[in-house]
Amino acid sequence: MTHIDIKLEPLTREAFKPFGDVIELNESNDMFPINFGLTERHHALSRVDVADGGGEPIISLFENQPASLPIRVKVMERHPLGSQAFIAISGNPYVIVVGEAGDFDHTKLHAFLAQSSQAINYYKGTWHHYCLGLNAVNQFVVVDRGGTGDNCDESEIPDDVVITVNH
Amino acid sequence: MTHIDIKLEPLTREAFKPFGDVIELNESNDMFPINFGLTERHHALSRVDVADGGGEPIISLFENQPASLPIRVKVMERHPLGSQAFIAISGNPYVIVVGEAGDFDHTKLHAFLAQSSQAINYYKGTWHHYCLGLNAVNQFVVVDRGGTGDNCDESEIPDDVVITVNH
Repeated sequence: MTHIDIKLEPLTREAFKPFGDVIELNESNDMFPINFGLTERHHALSRVDVADGGGEPIISLFENQPASLPIRVKVMERHPLGSQAFIAISGNPYVIVVGEAGDFDHTKLHAFLAQSSQAINYYKGTWHHYCLGLNAVNQFVVVDRGGTGDNCDESEIPDDVVITVNH
Repeated sequence: MTHIDIKLEPLTREAFKPFGDVIELNESNDMFPINFGLTERHHALSRVDVADGGGEPIISLFENQPASLPIRVKVMERHPLGSQAFIAISGNPYVIVVGEAGDFDHTKLHAFLAQSSQAINYYKGTWHHYCLGLNAVNQFVVVDRGGTGDNCDESEIPDDVVITVNH
């Protein structure tokens, strides 16, 4: 069994581009004022892509037990029929582990540290770890696909893959 | 000009039912464990209803200037082609003002105090005030309709309608 360390990177839109969208304040956003100038609308930062196989967009709430670093990555999942957005509402940072859509390769994973002001939307088919909220029990509002069809694949990892803060 | 006071009610799923869904932890939820028992999925608490006129679901970010009570309600809006969900990510409570879909009647409005742990989804056509986050500048992740078509009606209020905490 090989040991693989994954570098925990800060979450940025650019670094996350192969895997999904980051929904955050950003000067590159398409922004326009609404509500008589009292609100900035940062418009269409991501698209909910769930229509495959007759799917419909639904909103759910996830409540997760807290994760703590170092994190051992044992299994990853993907949703082949739809995107999946996570919006942290408990104020804590969270860890994201992802691999590009396509054939699963556990030697090419990336790990990001997201702040609660950064929501994310995984593209359809992006490999990702389940929710890893830090510090406390965390709630996430999740926007994903409702409907019939097999929309979850899992891949187990044969090696010892670990995410650490300093390495 | 008539003066109308609106009672600020705590937001509950039952009280909000004529206007939209409340996305929150609730024992009436369809809940099942996922992620090897580490996550509770409170499933499909609301549906994103934006397909009218060829619309597609999009995710945006709103940043609002803070509101403070008492609030004078001068204009309300509705989106005839789609639902609109607001997910507070800045940790502050917010005020919701709503009227049932259909002909606008400013004498039948309701006001709710929502906690940041309560996301909401206005049904298509529900009359509502724009975002009223309290205490500070607030950010909301918004899930609504992208696409062509006229999806915003406004109604001005001829009377002096005020939301107060104690009255």
